[in-house]
Amino acid sequence: MNDPLPLDRVRVVLVRTSHPGNIGAAARAMKTMGLARLWLVSPASFPDPVARARASGAGDVLDGATVVDTLPEALAGTVFAAALTARRRDLSLPRLGPRAAATELLEWCARGEVALVFGNEASGLTNEELGLCALPVTIPASSDYASLNLGAAVQLACYELRMAAMGEDARPAPAERTPDPATHEEIEGFFAHLESAIVTSGFLDPAKPRRLMPKLRRLFGRARLEKGEVAILRGILASFSAGENK
Amino acid sequence: MNDPLPLDRVRVVLVRTSHPGNIGAAARAMKTMGLARLWLVSPASFPDPVARARASGAGDVLDGATVVDTLPEALAGTVFAAALTARRRDLSLPRLGPRAAATELLEWCARGEVALVFGNEASGLTNEELGLCALPVTIPASSDYASLNLGAAVQLACYELRMAAMGEDARPAPAERTPDPATHEEIEGFFAHLESAIVTSGFLDPAKPRRLMPKLRRLFGRARLEKGEVAILRGILASFSAGENK
Repeated sequence: MNDPLPLDRVRVVLVRTSHPGNIGAAARAMKTMGLARLWLVSPASFPDPVARARASGAGDVLDGATVVDTLPEALAGTVFAAALTARRRDLSLPRLGPRAAATELLEWCARGEVALVFGNEASGLTNEELGLCALPVTIPASSDYASLNLGAAVQLACYELRMAAMGEDARPAPAERTPDPATHEEIEGFFAHLESAIVTSGFLDPAKPRRLMPKLRRLFGRARLEKGEVAILRGILASFSAGENK
Repeated sequence: MNDPLPLDRVRVVLVRTSHPGNIGAAARAMKTMGLARLWLVSPASFPDPVARARASGAGDVLDGATVVDTLPEALAGTVFAAALTARRRDLSLPRLGPRAAATELLEWCARGEVALVFGNEASGLTNEELGLCALPVTIPASSDYASLNLGAAVQLACYELRMAAMGEDARPAPAERTPDPATHEEIEGFFAHLESAIVTSGFLDPAKPRRLMPKLRRLFGRARLEKGEVAILRGILASFSAGENK
């Protein structure tokens, strides 16, 4: 391999892409930057000759693409996910641009697989889908017109990953032994447990959820939970439930 | 104007573009990055409905485009020109990537108009044309496949110009509305509440604390708790205690 960069642990995930041409453009953008792992969540049309044509010399990236029905399936097995979003949301999160996000994504590559998620061309990602990704990333586009083409956004994000990866050698060595990050499934297991526990305790009224779970996802998302921490938090929840059953 | 960046002195020059779709994609890429001045040297087809469609909301950039016959005409009046090229030439010139090139281009913007030149999709620029540009710029693409789509290359180069122009402002965008951080006292109040609750629930044995509280402090410390979050967490703890007293 001519490109011994740590980019083989990066999944580029395109969610509900409407135009097959954009899937092809994304594949081409990825390959020019040394990325190869394309995941497609419910694409409108795939495979498609238009995607093939726009991919140009990156047909192999299309051939190797994994097609799934939902974003959680595409995130299964990852330890970190970043989502491109132009959306202004109620819940204010610190936004990173693609440059800073690339640095963080690459740091996570040392621990396992990571995902870079792009929503539908017109509607983006749902709030629920955004909630599954720890890091929202916003391209610092013009306030006059901020709508990048999907393929162009993929090109830009993959370029920043490549630039960050090429600079890796100059980085200070990471801490010798850092705890294992929780996987996507472990984190989702915790949130499901938490939600069920606070519904049972009466704190969360499913009829009037008051955006409680998104707020809690945002809080714990910032913390970047470790495996051991998920175990502690679930142990705490279990101890409270045991008390309630007394 | 919402974008008071010094990018209005940058001409994006597309030379002998074959596919009108790429002209539209370039216009869109430019506008998202706050650039507006498009010059077209002998385009195969312009204006063209395909360019219009791919430009999406950047039709005004197409409307304002200047069409000329030769590159020297497009460079007339400029003080500096950079040319994107993947070509290895006999005359080895120091190559800059788009990031360093953007910095240099912006410095020249203080002196007058500058140009960023892109060749034909397949054949690039002639050696004579390259010779008219002081600075050859090469995107550090994969050696396996280095062929970026023209619109994607324009997106990337304009992005680097924008990042350079934003300078300090290119920092991560702060959240629109940053919530108040919790005070030291509020955070300590939460930890005291948490400790008491998990002692009561039996999860924390004061005789054998297993470093539980330091671990929880480390977790929530990373999250940098906000006022509202402390209130939610304490509400959750209170709801569990209420259950235990049932």
